[in-house]
Amino acid sequence: MQIAIPLFDRFAAQDAIGPYQVLSAIPGATVRFTGPEPGPVKTDNRMLTVLVDERWEDLPDPDVLVVPGGIGTRALLRDERVLEWVRGAHATSRWTASVCTGSLLLAAAGLLDGVDATTNWMEYEVLAELGACPTAERVVERGKIMTAAGVTAGLDMALILAARLTTPEVAQAIQLGLEYDPQPPFDAGSPDKAAPEIVELVRTAVTAQNAEALAEMEAAGTSR
Amino acid sequence: MQIAIPLFDRFAAQDAIGPYQVLSAIPGATVRFTGPEPGPVKTDNRMLTVLVDERWEDLPDPDVLVVPGGIGTRALLRDERVLEWVRGAHATSRWTASVCTGSLLLAAAGLLDGVDATTNWMEYEVLAELGACPTAERVVERGKIMTAAGVTAGLDMALILAARLTTPEVAQAIQLGLEYDPQPPFDAGSPDKAAPEIVELVRTAVTAQNAEALAEMEAAGTSR
Repeated sequence: MQIAIPLFDRFAAQDAIGPYQVLSAIPGATVRFTGPEPGPVKTDNRMLTVLVDERWEDLPDPDVLVVPGGIGTRALLRDERVLEWVRGAHATSRWTASVCTGSLLLAAAGLLDGVDATTNWMEYEVLAELGACPTAERVVERGKIMTAAGVTAGLDMALILAARLTTPEVAQAIQLGLEYDPQPPFDAGSPDKAAPEIVELVRTAVTAQNAEALAEMEAAGTSR
Repeated sequence: MQIAIPLFDRFAAQDAIGPYQVLSAIPGATVRFTGPEPGPVKTDNRMLTVLVDERWEDLPDPDVLVVPGGIGTRALLRDERVLEWVRGAHATSRWTASVCTGSLLLAAAGLLDGVDATTNWMEYEVLAELGACPTAERVVERGKIMTAAGVTAGLDMALILAARLTTPEVAQAIQLGLEYDPQPPFDAGSPDKAAPEIVELVRTAVTAQNAEALAEMEAAGTSR
């Protein structure tokens, strides 16, 4: 079983690594990191560098496609090369999935026209503009497309995906192996649970971070 | 604020990336990935390659040290070079932390003699042999040492750490930014919650995987 996780400049590490950690534990599964070209790519905050194994096109027909998010997605939304690869991979995949703003890429590729899907809670409007029907659930499963909410939702999604690809028992064994018995110290993980001032704080900070990143991408000629 | 996350051959990706994703969101914080030498290191399952930024010794006094686990820890337990760095970093750190079998390294460095600490649920005996007092809690905080249970416990630990390093409000904002509102599809994340046959399945599979990895490390001359 071949699982493709596309990487790109300014991806969000946890979006990719959560599903990788879960899905790579499926017996017989291989996770491959694809990208614009083999070699290093940096995460959204520029603090981590990960190596791409092969070009997107080198893995045209993975069994499973999991697209991570991150501000770098914005540079891919009009990149016909990656969109073409996503469409081709989806045509033959068993499952096509995304985490956080990875769903923007699925939408830009035309896979989510009129389809319920999710992304992080700050990006529903952008997802709607790209033709999908934003759905405020942690994991949204429609046909063979599974989309997850922000960043850490990729762990929950990948366990569901593991169960669909194998059996609930295998998924539970993976959950136990990763000791995924979450005990967050606060109950502030969604906008309806966090205090209004925390929601506002995050919205303001993320808007500023995204604007700065997009300006840097523009200056570097990588945004479209 | 400098946060050092040491990497090494056969580390477990989520152990490192969960805390990175949380702690890198602290305003003014920088996460640096240290290692035996700058360049690529592969994860435990050999499917992911991450770049080390600088040698362990190049960052002698981080504010925070977070040691990930993975079968590769076994090759470090008698590696005086890394143990010396860990001791030195701990001498001046504000916090010294570990995820999963990262605590074995803290113990081997002599930081956990007679101290309550945790690791993943399959490694309590090894932790005890190294002088610590294994404690079956998700996050164990003693003085300025914080140890987390298996793999995904690093997310919960890092949020607690973020609150200690800043304020509960900042930690909650980070939690919301990462949409950490976990909804695992199964309740099998700890050995007392999973079915006995699942516990046995995982124990058998992990024992076999570890034996295979240790044999490969032995053959490559990297285990001690």
